[in-house]
Amino acid sequence: MKLYDLELSGNCYKVRLFCALNNIPLDIVPVDYLAGEHKGSEYLAINPLGQLPSLDDNGLIIRDSQAILVYLAVKYDLINWWPHGAIGQALIMQWLSFSANEIARGPNDARLHDLFEVPLDVAEARDKARAVLDVTEATLQDSNWLVGDKVTLADIACFPYIALAHQGGVALDAYPKTRAWCERIKMLNGFITMPGIE
Amino acid sequence: MKLYDLELSGNCYKVRLFCALNNIPLDIVPVDYLAGEHKGSEYLAINPLGQLPSLDDNGLIIRDSQAILVYLAVKYDLINWWPHGAIGQALIMQWLSFSANEIARGPNDARLHDLFEVPLDVAEARDKARAVLDVTEATLQDSNWLVGDKVTLADIACFPYIALAHQGGVALDAYPKTRAWCERIKMLNGFITMPGIE
Repeated sequence: MKLYDLELSGNCYKVRLFCALNNIPLDIVPVDYLAGEHKGSEYLAINPLGQLPSLDDNGLIIRDSQAILVYLAVKYDLINWWPHGAIGQALIMQWLSFSANEIARGPNDARLHDLFEVPLDVAEARDKARAVLDVTEATLQDSNWLVGDKVTLADIACFPYIALAHQGGVALDAYPKTRAWCERIKMLNGFITMPGIE
Repeated sequence: MKLYDLELSGNCYKVRLFCALNNIPLDIVPVDYLAGEHKGSEYLAINPLGQLPSLDDNGLIIRDSQAILVYLAVKYDLINWWPHGAIGQALIMQWLSFSANEIARGPNDARLHDLFEVPLDVAEARDKARAVLDVTEATLQDSNWLVGDKVTLADIACFPYIALAHQGGVALDAYPKTRAWCERIKMLNGFITMPGIE
């Protein structure tokens, strides 16, 4: 399987991390974001949205990091990460949407502004990042993981941009439960890191 | 099952629509958005994000419209809408993320501005709405549905805010394939409408 990848992307990292935790081999194909390769005709033929990552499994192309996580979990029958039942899938799905919406508009956008000079309202993105952290902090008050008592796709989908929030000017100092959750993820067997995550 | 609902919300409507198409009974609990009831302590105890809709199935609370769709499809074993396999789930999941991210930032935001006077950059939202329509138009060029040859959760998740795009100042005139797809959804057995969708 090929992963069209950008090392500095939290969305790409979440796929690399999930594969590392589950011993799933990946062929990494770096895409030159700064040179605009993701908006070139060759890559747009792979992913018309011009977004990273994309997965190519023997010609089947999956775009969107959340969709790739679901694909891999079902393909390899990793039911601890993505169960078969309605309650489990729905509770995790809440956090996949949270990653695609609230986290994208919050810590991800703030970091895009600060790190890649993407023009956007960074004050608003930081406000939304703090609202995201309020939600994770409340959820993790009496729980080690976002859903149930084990790590799931919910945690992997949400972890990268929360752990990278400081690169968008949002510190985790006021969020001890969220910091402890980040540390638990870092302790998982097979954990790998990316630039910006200690 | 109780649905905490706002009649004018496309996210609430997608749940009502899916239930209507599948004869799933719902007890509708209207939440007074204009009076701020969704940000009051009573509703925040149900959904800490203060968003609509939320589903209450005998005390189990599911928030987020995409998560509710997945919950209902798995609970009632509606595998035409949400299959068991990796490829089917991943291809649909791409569009659930598209709904939570690109559609939310595009046609949904533009409509929030125009209809509910939410302060945001409406020119940018309209640009993103047109980018959304470029993607659906290209996808529907040789296909009747967003994934495969049958209607799935992908179509239900994306339909409302595309059909409501005109309320955010974005016409579908230049997108004939997307308009035809909207008409196909309206022809589904059991289809119900909402204000703003003919």
